[in-house]
Amino acid sequence: MLITFLSDFGTADYYAGAMKGAALAVAPGAQVVDLTHDIPPHDIEAGAFALAAAFEAFPRGTVHVAVVDPGVGSERRGLLVEASGHLFVGPDNGLFGHVYERADGLRVFRLTDQPHARPPASATFHGRDVFAPAAGALARGVKPEDLGEEIQDFVRLAFARPERRPDGSLEAAVIHTDRFGNLVTNVTPRDISPDALAAGRARLVVGPHEVRNFRRFYADERGGGGPAEPFAIWGSAGFLEISLNQASAARALGARRGQKITVTVKT
Amino acid sequence: MLITFLSDFGTADYYAGAMKGAALAVAPGAQVVDLTHDIPPHDIEAGAFALAAAFEAFPRGTVHVAVVDPGVGSERRGLLVEASGHLFVGPDNGLFGHVYERADGLRVFRLTDQPHARPPASATFHGRDVFAPAAGALARGVKPEDLGEEIQDFVRLAFARPERRPDGSLEAAVIHTDRFGNLVTNVTPRDISPDALAAGRARLVVGPHEVRNFRRFYADERGGGGPAEPFAIWGSAGFLEISLNQASAARALGARRGQKITVTVKT
Amino acid sequence: MLITFLSDFGTADYYAGAMKGAALAVAPGAQVVDLTHDIPPHDIEAGAFALAAAFEAFPRGTVHVAVVDPGVGSERRGLLVEASGHLFVGPDNGLFGHVYERADGLRVFRLTDQPHARPPASATFHGRDVFAPAAGALARGVKPEDLGEEIQDFVRLAFARPERRPDGSLEAAVIHTDRFGNLVTNVTPRDISPDALAAGRARLVVGPHEVRNFRRFYADERGGGGPAEPFAIWGSAGFLEISLNQASAARALGARRGQKITVTVKT
Repeated sequence: MLITFLSDFGTADYYAGAMKGAALAVAPGAQVVDLTHDIPPHDIEAGAFALAAAFEAFPRGTVHVAVVDPGVGSERRGLLVEASGHLFVGPDNGLFGHVYERADGLRVFRLTDQPHARPPASATFHGRDVFAPAAGALARGVKPEDLGEEIQDFVRLAFARPERRPDGSLEAAVIHTDRFGNLVTNVTPRDISPDALAAGRARLVVGPHEVRNFRRFYADERGGGGPAEPFAIWGSAGFLEISLNQASAARALGARRGQKITVTVKT
Repeated sequence: MLITFLSDFGTADYYAGAMKGAALAVAPGAQVVDLTHDIPPHDIEAGAFALAAAFEAFPRGTVHVAVVDPGVGSERRGLLVEASGHLFVGPDNGLFGHVYERADGLRVFRLTDQPHARPPASATFHGRDVFAPAAGALARGVKPEDLGEEIQDFVRLAFARPERRPDGSLEAAVIHTDRFGNLVTNVTPRDISPDALAAGRARLVVGPHEVRNFRRFYADERGGGGPAEPFAIWGSAGFLEISLNQASAARALGARRGQKITVTVKT
Repeated sequence: MLITFLSDFGTADYYAGAMKGAALAVAPGAQVVDLTHDIPPHDIEAGAFALAAAFEAFPRGTVHVAVVDPGVGSERRGLLVEASGHLFVGPDNGLFGHVYERADGLRVFRLTDQPHARPPASATFHGRDVFAPAAGALARGVKPEDLGEEIQDFVRLAFARPERRPDGSLEAAVIHTDRFGNLVTNVTPRDISPDALAAGRARLVVGPHEVRNFRRFYADERGGGGPAEPFAIWGSAGFLEISLNQASAARALGARRGQKITVTVKT
């Protein structure tokens, strides 16, 4: 029994701790694992990215609680999600948007029965009072269909996919900047030929800057370019990234989430 | 066997990790769970609040190690506390003050026997060398009375309760500000009629500002007030809070811990 | 089965979570424990200090994954280390330098076989794709010699040991500054007589400042000196530290990592 937690609660407050406790109160003996609680407050898109990038490393059957929930207590629905052999619990606000995109065998349930909810559920902390207890129940083997009804009209993330322009170029965007200053774009191997990249035929325009180098790993020098030149690299979350070896590409290029990138490939 | 940890050690140093290891060395197989290590350094009052707000979500029988301990190595005593079916280990400096207030079935023991302490206990890190091993022993079923003697003169937190003024108003205070800018006051349902609040008959004066709206949940619009107006709300730790929907009430009202609040109820 | 994790990944990204998941995918039922993920990016020396200071508190047999890995994907080797009854997995870049210094029964293996690695291993995230799966295998009882070949030419940390000068004084250095502003030096009991320290016969010169007081614990007043005077103290990681009671010695002395310290003992 394995339950992970992702939230925008930060780690300085009691919220993350209490949420883990509430899951353990329902599923004693389960192992609770923090993914991250440092999603920027109310930033559903950042939470959706981190969740999708992290969950697949866990064994199938893991239950993932995700709470970035600015609408807590309102009419927004609670969800139970089955995807790729994993289970997810959290609000219906797009937080599972990337999971839906990647899912193998997707089923989404509206959480209606809460036999394990802490009575009375507070109006402001469903992470502790509703979602964590439901996760505990799932960890103990309760089926999602026993706690809710299957729905189709769940909220999908308005997830910017790269767009193909008439001239054949790709208009992409930065969707995440990590601690090391790597710029994660929304470009996947479906959007651009990995061979063209590896052969140095791709060019990424990032504002006034241009990226022409491609590396297989950070210290790869066969990709060309000096140590101070940014390069493209396939990142560990499955997206194309722009990086600098041991330095911040975000700082060097003055770029952050939302930055437009134009990708052209010389044929 | 479940052991939680709360401290002011931060997460950048080796302290939190070593403390968990020392508990596991005594109680292999126990599950260790971080509550928070980001209590501001030496801030006993903040630690006391977070501990009390978090522990109740955990199952009975959980052992909680709490270390905010500016007097480490001095004559201050170590404690084992039984309260509401939970066990606590840490210094006798008021850190368990809120736990005492809420406890059902309180017994407090001075930690005198340390059969599991790491030899020799360092003079500066009792979290690792004294408290965590004691917690491991408790998790394995050792009784508090086997490790110390019951005492009555433990240190209670100088915990500011709201005061009733001659004119019937309540002088309260902000005791915590969270990541989202919610202002947690020391007002509980014992101090003010929830009905009066819900009926809009209460008024909170915070410095030059006045809060007249009350919401049941953050996005509740029946409570009146525009989106930029702060409102009172019962928070998840059992205290009245002042909040803004998706914005920081602390910033909007220029308030932080210690801020005085006057509460008047129109009858 | 106990697996700890130390990295420079921070806690805001998906890296730490995914790494734990990858270990659990190989060793379901293992307990994963965070040491810290807040090592400054690419700071091998800081990671080496924190790892050495933390691991000894854990029970023998614990597997420790440590990833501060600026050379990820390059020719730098992956290691499996047996030391003092613990097991370590990570890059061969000096990160285990302090562990080697303290080890009882050291054996170091180059990681060559990766039967559990996630296919295909990404070029940028060996923490998830190589090291965590190897740790999972070790936790399940696979022997280091089954996953690699023993080597002798592993990278030792350029670890600043104090140097003895012709006049008998010791030239030491600050190797770490913690959250509380304690200055951890590289002076151990092998370098200076604890009796001389306790007797007040040692003098530490830190830039323009001089430290003459010695305390057994932070609030110890028998060590002499006013409340605003820094003092030397044996710290919990086994090194001599310079501290202030409830204040930052780093700030008071204007010192940080790398600061030279001259220690003289009056005989």
